Amino acid sequence: MEVDEPVLLPRLARVAVCGGTHGNELSGVYLVRELLKEAQEKERDDEGPLSVQTLLSNPRATQQCRRYIDADLNRCFSLATLNGPVSEAAPYEIILARELNASLGPKGSQEAVDLVCDLHNTTANMGLCFIAYSDKDWICLHIFKHLQRQMPDIPMRFIHFNISKKESYSLDSVGKHGFALEIGPQPHGVVRSNVYTAMKVGVRHILDWIHYFNSGSVFEGGYVDVFTMVKNIDYPRDSQTHNITAAIHPRLQDRDFCLLCPEDPLFQTFSGEELTYKGNEPLYPFFINECAYYEKGIALSLARKKRVMIPPIRAQTEVEKQASEQSFASEEEE
Amino acid sequence: MEVDEPVLLPRLARVAVCGGTHGNELSGVYLVRELLKEAQEKERDDEGPLSVQTLLSNPRATQQCRRYIDADLNRCFSLATLNGPVSEAAPYEIILARELNASLGPKGSQEAVDLVCDLHNTTANMGLCFIAYSDKDWICLHIFKHLQRQMPDIPMRFIHFNISKKESYSLDSVGKHGFALEIGPQPHGVVRSNVYTAMKVGVRHILDWIHYFNSGSVFEGGYVDVFTMVKNIDYPRDSQTHNITAAIHPRLQDRDFCLLCPEDPLFQTFSGEELTYKGNEPLYPFFINECAYYEKGIALSLARKKRVMIPPIRAQTEVEKQASEQSFASEEEE
Repeated sequence: MEVDEPVLLPRLARVAVCGGTHGNELSGVYLVRELLKEAQEKERDDEGPLSVQTLLSNPRATQQCRRYIDADLNRCFSLATLNGPVSEAAPYEIILARELNASLGPKGSQEAVDLVCDLHNTTANMGLCFIAYSDKDWICLHIFKHLQRQMPDIPMRFIHFNISKKESYSLDSVGKHGFALEIGPQPHGVVRSNVYTAMKVGVRHILDWIHYFNSGSVFEGGYVDVFTMVKNIDYPRDSQTHNITAAIHPRLQDRDFCLLCPEDPLFQTFSGEELTYKGNEPLYPFFINECAYYEKGIALSLARKKRVMIPPIRAQTEVEKQASEQSFASEEEE
Repeated sequence: MEVDEPVLLPRLARVAVCGGTHGNELSGVYLVRELLKEAQEKERDDEGPLSVQTLLSNPRATQQCRRYIDADLNRCFSLATLNGPVSEAAPYEIILARELNASLGPKGSQEAVDLVCDLHNTTANMGLCFIAYSDKDWICLHIFKHLQRQMPDIPMRFIHFNISKKESYSLDSVGKHGFALEIGPQPHGVVRSNVYTAMKVGVRHILDWIHYFNSGSVFEGGYVDVFTMVKNIDYPRDSQTHNITAAIHPRLQDRDFCLLCPEDPLFQTFSGEELTYKGNEPLYPFFINECAYYEKGIALSLARKKRVMIPPIRAQTEVEKQASEQSFASEEEE
C-alpha cells in the first residue's frame, strides 16, 4: 500500500486564544479569565517554544455584558476597514480592531500570530462548530479532526465561509490560521456549566494538538465533512413596521444541521400559519434563531455539505524550514 | 354532603394584558402586537361588558430590544417610588411608571383596572408561572387552577412573593388583582414558537375564564400548590473583582422546582470544583440561572411549598353588588 508523504508546514510558535469579542457571550469571557488566572499561577516558563496569548478582545462590551458598544467588533477586520480612514469620533470597535490587529497581526503579514482561536456562543442548537474562511487550511481541518475524535459526545461541525482573506471580517482572520470556536445553545448573558466545560475541554485539546504538531508528530490524512455557507434567510416582516411576523417553525427550531428540503416547515406566523421553505435545493440550516442576528436580518443560514480529503501533515524541522526559506528567497531573486 | 356557598366577588369589568415591560422578553412583545392587530381587525364592539386593554409597557426598551433603558421598569411600582419626588432628569422608567399608574391605576384606588396580566419570559426552565403577591387572592388562584386544567401538558406553578401591596413593585401590582405570567426557557432577545404559543394559549384561557366568571358561572373550590419565596442565593464571586467564579452546577441547571436538599450540588467553579447547598432546609429552587439576575446578584431563588384551599367563587349579580355597596356605605356612616 502506498502511503502519502506528509505535507510539511511551518510550526505554530505563537497562538492567541480570545474571548469576549462579543461581550455577552459568557463561556469565552469566563474561560479566558480562568486561563489568565491559571497562567499567572503556573508561570509557564518551562513550556518551551509555544507562546499562548490569552485575551479579552472587547473589554468595554464585556464589562457591560453587551455584544458591542458601537459596532460589531467581529465585522471590523476586513483589510478595507482596518486600513480605511479613521477619525477621532470613530466607533469604539473600529479603534479596538486596529489595536488588536497591531498586537496580533498585522493581518496578512509574516509578523501575524500563527493561529487565532476566537471563542463564541450562540443561542442556536449548534453544538461545537469551527467557523473558518478556508476549506483548504490543513492546520484548521486537522485540529477539527482531532477534536472530533477526542470529544465524541459533542456534536461537532466545520463551517466554511467562502470569503477571500482580504474581505474576511472576523478577529480570527488576523492570524495566519484562525477559526471561531462557536458553541451553543446558550442564551447570551448567561453561562451554562455544560457549555463552558465543552469549550474548556475543546481549547485544551486544541493546545494539546499544537504541542504534538510542534513536537514533530505526523498526523494522518482523511476525510472531513465541511458545511459551506450558501445563503441567509430573513424572518418574514411587516412591510410597514419592518417588525417580524413569524418565528422559526417549532419543527425546525433546534434542528441545526438537519437537512431542510423544499416545502418543509420553515416559519410559524404569530397568528398561527405555517410557512414552508421555498428553495429548490435541500440544504443544511444553521444559526437557527440566533439572538444577535435578528438585527442583521438573519433567521437562519443555509449550507451545502461536502467531503474534503485532507493530506497527512507534519511540522517542518528547523533544517527543512531554513531550506524552504532559502528556496523561497532564491525564487524571489530570479 | 354539605356544599360550601360560593364567595361572591365583584365582576372583572376592566382587564389589562401587558407585554414588553422588559423590552427583550419577546413572547409578550409579539403576542401584544398580535392581539392589537386582531382587535383592530375585529373591532370587538359586540363583546359586552368586558374591556380588555392590550399594551406595550416599555416602548423605548422594546424598540431597542433591551430589558430597560435607565432602570428596571418592573421595580418602579411601589407606592414610595410612584409617589416620591421626581425631577426632570428622572430615569425614563420612573416617568413611564407614573404614566402607566395613571392609565391603569392609580394603584390601590377604586379606579384601578380589575386585573393586570403582565407577560414575561425567563431563561430559566420554569415552564409557565403565575407570580403574585398574595396567596389569598381567589381570582388569581382560580385563574391559575383553570389554566392548569386547560393546559395539562405545560408544567405550571404559582409563585407567591410575600410582600405587602404597598411595597409590591411590579406592574401587575397596579391592578386590583394582578400577576406576572412568566414563561421559559427562552433566551432574551429571541422568540421561540413553542414558548410564544404557550403564552398565547394561556392568555386566551385567562380571558375565557374572565368571561365565564362575569357571566355568573360558579367555580368549585379546591387545593392549589403555592411556592412561597424564601430567599435568593448569589453566585460565588471573586472578592476583589466581584466577577462570578462559578456557574450553576450542571446537575441543578434546568431543574427548577425540583427539591434542593442540604449538600446537593449547587455550583461548579470555573476551575471545575463542586460547591454544595449549605442551607439547613430542603427548598424548591426557581429562576435558576436567569440572565437578568446576574446584575441583581441572584443565581437562583428558593421557595417553600404549601397547599392552599381556595373556596368556590361566583361573580356578584348587579343586585348583590348594589346591596353590598349599600351595606358598605351604611357601615361607613356608622
